[in-house]
Amino acid sequence: MTHSTEVQEKLSTLKLLLLDVDGVLTSGTITYTDQGDEIKSFSVKDGLGLRLLMDAGVRVGIITGRSSKALMARCDNLGIDLLFDGIKDKVSALETILAQTGVTAGETAFAGDDLPDLCVMKRVGLAITVADASPEVKQASLIITPQRGGEGAVRKICEDVLKAKGLWDGIVTRFSQ
Amino acid sequence: MTHSTEVQEKLSTLKLLLLDVDGVLTSGTITYTDQGDEIKSFSVKDGLGLRLLMDAGVRVGIITGRSSKALMARCDNLGIDLLFDGIKDKVSALETILAQTGVTAGETAFAGDDLPDLCVMKRVGLAITVADASPEVKQASLIITPQRGGEGAVRKICEDVLKAKGLWDGIVTRFSQ
Amino acid sequence: MTHSTEVQEKLSTLKLLLLDVDGVLTSGTITYTDQGDEIKSFSVKDGLGLRLLMDAGVRVGIITGRSSKALMARCDNLGIDLLFDGIKDKVSALETILAQTGVTAGETAFAGDDLPDLCVMKRVGLAITVADASPEVKQASLIITPQRGGEGAVRKICEDVLKAKGLWDGIVTRFSQ
Amino acid sequence: MTHSTEVQEKLSTLKLLLLDVDGVLTSGTITYTDQGDEIKSFSVKDGLGLRLLMDAGVRVGIITGRSSKALMARCDNLGIDLLFDGIKDKVSALETILAQTGVTAGETAFAGDDLPDLCVMKRVGLAITVADASPEVKQASLIITPQRGGEGAVRKICEDVLKAKGLWDGIVTRFSQ
Repeated sequence: MTHSTEVQEKLSTLKLLLLDVDGVLTSGTITYTDQGDEIKSFSVKDGLGLRLLMDAGVRVGIITGRSSKALMARCDNLGIDLLFDGIKDKVSALETILAQTGVTAGETAFAGDDLPDLCVMKRVGLAITVADASPEVKQASLIITPQRGGEGAVRKICEDVLKAKGLWDGIVTRFSQ
Repeated sequence: MTHSTEVQEKLSTLKLLLLDVDGVLTSGTITYTDQGDEIKSFSVKDGLGLRLLMDAGVRVGIITGRSSKALMARCDNLGIDLLFDGIKDKVSALETILAQTGVTAGETAFAGDDLPDLCVMKRVGLAITVADASPEVKQASLIITPQRGGEGAVRKICEDVLKAKGLWDGIVTRFSQ
Repeated sequence: MTHSTEVQEKLSTLKLLLLDVDGVLTSGTITYTDQGDEIKSFSVKDGLGLRLLMDAGVRVGIITGRSSKALMARCDNLGIDLLFDGIKDKVSALETILAQTGVTAGETAFAGDDLPDLCVMKRVGLAITVADASPEVKQASLIITPQRGGEGAVRKICEDVLKAKGLWDGIVTRFSQ
Repeated sequence: MTHSTEVQEKLSTLKLLLLDVDGVLTSGTITYTDQGDEIKSFSVKDGLGLRLLMDAGVRVGIITGRSSKALMARCDNLGIDLLFDGIKDKVSALETILAQTGVTAGETAFAGDDLPDLCVMKRVGLAITVADASPEVKQASLIITPQRGGEGAVRKICEDVLKAKGLWDGIVTRFSQ
């Protein structure tokens, strides 16, 4: 899949990547223990992608309607401090993050997978979604990853950004030494 | 998949959606911890579908032979109060729910996936099942979702109801703003 | 898949079904918590099959090299009391079970999926395995289920036995009322 | 898949198999409980392969960037004592293991799946990867297993080594008795 010139330009100038959690960073499975605790599964490959993206100076943030210690543990592990969880009003969370980071909406991408993400997706420069998103969300997206949520979709997004910025080959070379 | 006129009419007048849990709201995997506790995994997309359906005034209930805090946590999270778990006699649970809600069997759908669901399925107006149900249950169903249990089958059912009632486009528009 | 006359006869006279756990009743995934506890996932459809088989008077037992509270919880739930776990010498466990139940090896089936099951499989009348077993085990089996371990393979075995005994149609009719 | 003569020779003289964990011994899923604990899932078939390999005198070790009690429990269970977890500098861990075991880099294989494994893979005699590895890692590997990480890839590696050493048939015969 090659992106259009418009999308390539948005990727190459991206300053902030915002992510929904369930269905994007995970497969959309909500798991409860018999104690009512929530368990969440993430992709180790997504994790490396996000770390490389942050190392390259792109900010990464989370906007999600749900809240769990599992998500907090994952964000801690990856060094993501822009964690907006338990969010009812996603647009207001977006505005807070933009104000806090000084990044414009045009320099921001949001990756979501279902109806509650649409309001944010239409307000940022680059709307991204995953292979198993709702049809309405796919229609609103400039990029649809070939990967499903939780199965490397976010890694693909991170690589696309780093490649558009001309940084990927250098990263691979550094790891190969 | 387009439904027959008969099925469309049943969907458009539906007042109550009853669901089996294992194999319908989940993939049918029964997970135990080494403490003997049970863990259950649900689909976040099913969850949104059920919430939208309840917002539209359709009642949602659960009839299941098993019982777990994980299921209670999920029902709490979704606002489902018609929870009949640990049920040996599913027909009697159906009758209790119909009496309690004042809905007729003809205005009710039940989605099940295996033999113990057959007795309820034949007593309601609309019997629904999932892609990976037992053959005997598929034969007894008016709708078979293309999705497997736990992989968005219930979301598909909810969307079918909301579309038949002419409510889906308005919902998408509302989320898009 | 239709079975040979020889296999059909073995199924119709079967008195005891013995099962390996990991890779047969489960997908072969070994899951540890950070406390070192083991979690195990089973199929709800397998569970119903086993209960129907035991209701029909066929004994069901477990022979497995591993041991966990998760497995004990599952056996409790299904009413399986012939639980031989943490077994190093599977042949000796087989002999104990045959002596205890008074069933002959010829009237016994064993379903396994990997090399440590071979010694038992060659000693019983009917060796069964699953779609994703080791090639060496498949070669030693009279039945290979189309289903993978943990994905309904045991349900298929139970249905095959109940059908060979001419009991399945009556069971479905009973559930349909 | 048949290996080249060069690869067959490396397999037949192999003395040490080193493994990355996430994405090789697991599917690359990172699971957190709501307590922030990490859960890990392994393949029972990989486990048997590793035990047979160690029985045959091949040393097995782990080099991984992450650390968890789940991994420690799995290594305990399998009898793997060369556990280097929480490793930032994988090359230095490799050198420690080689010094500790007295095995040369040429007699060592490393199986990894992502960029941080490249530095070790290019320093050992035999670089191995899995079906769902990053493209850059696949390009650096002499063996790519048809299996994905966590789905029997390590079992395939162990069998390849034991077959190249002419030991597999004897193992199968021993289990068949």
